[in-house]
Amino acid sequence: MTASTTVRLDVPRDDPFGIHNLPYGVYSLPGRDPRVGTRYGEHVVDLATLLGDEVFAGPSLNPFMAQGHDRWVQVRAAIAAALNGDVPRQAVHSAADVTLHLPFEVADYVDFYASEHHAANLGRLFRPDNPDPLMPNWKHLPVGYHGRSASVVVSGTDIIRPCGQRKGPNDPAPVFGPSVRLDIEAELGFVVGTGNTLGEPVAAGRAEQHLFGVVLFNDWSARDIQAWEYVPLGPNLGKSFASTVSPWVVPLLALTEAKVRTPVQEPEVLPYLALDEPWGLDIDLEVEWNGQVVSRPPYAAMYWSPAQMLAHLTVNGAPTRTGDLFASGTVSGPAKEQRGAFIELTWGGAEPVTVAGQQRTFLEDGDEVVLRATAPGAGGARIGFGEARGRVVAARQGREV
Amino acid sequence: MTASTTVRLDVPRDDPFGIHNLPYGVYSLPGRDPRVGTRYGEHVVDLATLLGDEVFAGPSLNPFMAQGHDRWVQVRAAIAAALNGDVPRQAVHSAADVTLHLPFEVADYVDFYASEHHAANLGRLFRPDNPDPLMPNWKHLPVGYHGRSASVVVSGTDIIRPCGQRKGPNDPAPVFGPSVRLDIEAELGFVVGTGNTLGEPVAAGRAEQHLFGVVLFNDWSARDIQAWEYVPLGPNLGKSFASTVSPWVVPLLALTEAKVRTPVQEPEVLPYLALDEPWGLDIDLEVEWNGQVVSRPPYAAMYWSPAQMLAHLTVNGAPTRTGDLFASGTVSGPAKEQRGAFIELTWGGAEPVTVAGQQRTFLEDGDEVVLRATAPGAGGARIGFGEARGRVVAARQGREV
Repeated sequence: MTASTTVRLDVPRDDPFGIHNLPYGVYSLPGRDPRVGTRYGEHVVDLATLLGDEVFAGPSLNPFMAQGHDRWVQVRAAIAAALNGDVPRQAVHSAADVTLHLPFEVADYVDFYASEHHAANLGRLFRPDNPDPLMPNWKHLPVGYHGRSASVVVSGTDIIRPCGQRKGPNDPAPVFGPSVRLDIEAELGFVVGTGNTLGEPVAAGRAEQHLFGVVLFNDWSARDIQAWEYVPLGPNLGKSFASTVSPWVVPLLALTEAKVRTPVQEPEVLPYLALDEPWGLDIDLEVEWNGQVVSRPPYAAMYWSPAQMLAHLTVNGAPTRTGDLFASGTVSGPAKEQRGAFIELTWGGAEPVTVAGQQRTFLEDGDEVVLRATAPGAGGARIGFGEARGRVVAARQGREV
Repeated sequence: MTASTTVRLDVPRDDPFGIHNLPYGVYSLPGRDPRVGTRYGEHVVDLATLLGDEVFAGPSLNPFMAQGHDRWVQVRAAIAAALNGDVPRQAVHSAADVTLHLPFEVADYVDFYASEHHAANLGRLFRPDNPDPLMPNWKHLPVGYHGRSASVVVSGTDIIRPCGQRKGPNDPAPVFGPSVRLDIEAELGFVVGTGNTLGEPVAAGRAEQHLFGVVLFNDWSARDIQAWEYVPLGPNLGKSFASTVSPWVVPLLALTEAKVRTPVQEPEVLPYLALDEPWGLDIDLEVEWNGQVVSRPPYAAMYWSPAQMLAHLTVNGAPTRTGDLFASGTVSGPAKEQRGAFIELTWGGAEPVTVAGQQRTFLEDGDEVVLRATAPGAGGARIGFGEARGRVVAARQGREV
């Protein structure tokens, strides 16, 4: 190639989107169809063009993810090699010029509840008379429930305040209207690249073969709707209106340096949940509310690991598929400023926090929340996750189809 | 056409698959790709051939369903007209010669809990000290939860006994193994043909525009796994191993004669759940266990109607999509022999029933359960739903991938 058709990309090795990260996403240019790209520094690099592989020419990561773990390893090496050399100029776009899309088609979505600090805080808030804030099953299995795949949206999508039923403990009857206790949950989401067949569980030690990558995940939650509806079958409308994911899927292959032991699991877990190697993740999250960082939840404090979540999800023979997404549940650490949901941070609204000079409890219309995270990468680099951003807009009433 | 290339199909008007039914399914012949057909008497008629419409040439109803309500009306009339005339012989197969497949791609799946008799029976079994067997929210909203789409299987698929954690109230710790309280739930499933956009709820009075059809649904349930896991976020592994649907989707357009008022809803529902016209369904179900009918659950006794379920599902702005499936929850009537789950029929296992000469409570390996149903059709006909059949096979242990 001549100099005019190629370009050398000079990205510092410690850039959050440096050579040790190489996340996958789906981008588009104005008037063009979405395609798969990687983020490299401030560049978005088209992978079909870079690698000459048509699996990246479409609007979803699913076809590539379905090719399996060996291909993920090969392609990652090929991208790194290509980015270290002359890159076709037409493959390179400025991150500022592209629109980012939901990076994969979500198959089944499950939300876990894997932070002991979060579960215990909610237990203290909702069941103050119980001597143990955790439910009896909590340390024996990663508790989780299925949620709505259709309302998983990409960062930047406005969050319409949901309407629904709520009933306070002293209200004579439920009322209908916009949620008045709209909250966030700062989580990580894990993306299944290749699933398992019905009847064939994924052993915890084999999770690495199935898990493709990690996204930021904001499980927006209407606490008033949830509190009234959730007995006895769990959350539904209080959660199903929207969940925000970050546009860049960080490969699990980029997170080998982030692997740490989970906290000690005592009582000992059943054999199908036991792990020979560390599967905790030393990922530091950050919750920004109207421009101010209000919490820094440490993922390393999570009790249950994603490998255990996947083993549990499938131990009854349930199948998973390419594009399955399971989220961790709220990431909360032991300290108050490490709590990943406002219901915990403000202790059920009783202890407002100061946000940009105002005393605040739950979300108001116009509020914007941004999740960010970093993890240790190879050679002392930090791996960036980009952001999961959402702005709350006023409820729509009387608009029905 | 000459006599040798067409055929007249002589099906009695009161056949359960007569001219007033015309359900949609996906069938295949040996060595051929699956295609959309209708069932007419003992025939399966290929719709792409009958109507010359390629939307039916594929392995799923989704493309046709996505075309919307007006098309559903037109195509139904066109099929009826075509079947009353000369039918291309190559479009006609014997039902005995075809394999039936899952008729649609399941998008999001939600299970409701819409029978007052079922909810009250479970309340009495699980919370005997409560004066009211229903939860406080139960008469104010159709309680439901999301389930696993990937494990929705077509009638005839073997049901592998799931393994999982269980812990009896007096056990010191949970144990792992095959479920020992494997049960059924006889339900109807409602298939969304065209969805709603995020932020735009479906009004209850507009449900007819979105709902395509009805299937039989067996929500196989491992009661021991469910009892241990479900607090506080609802059922997960106790349900996610398999749900069986019947292969023929009966169009809602075939069920106009089956519309009846739901039982009186008192207290009055909130306006978004109010309906001007009857949306109950007079559908008689039948549960066969090892060849013996053990229960006849009446769908007409269901408290919440499918129109209310869809309005509730979307009232917070959650989107639905073509292929969304929501099930009613166990259909149980007021009488013992109308209970649609064995946990109710045997009162938690305390009152065994006689099945083929044996005293039985929960499912044993080798047991087979078949759900069937009929509804009133036009001109005094009965509309048949076919069957949802499943046989329990032994748990697989030690098979992990």
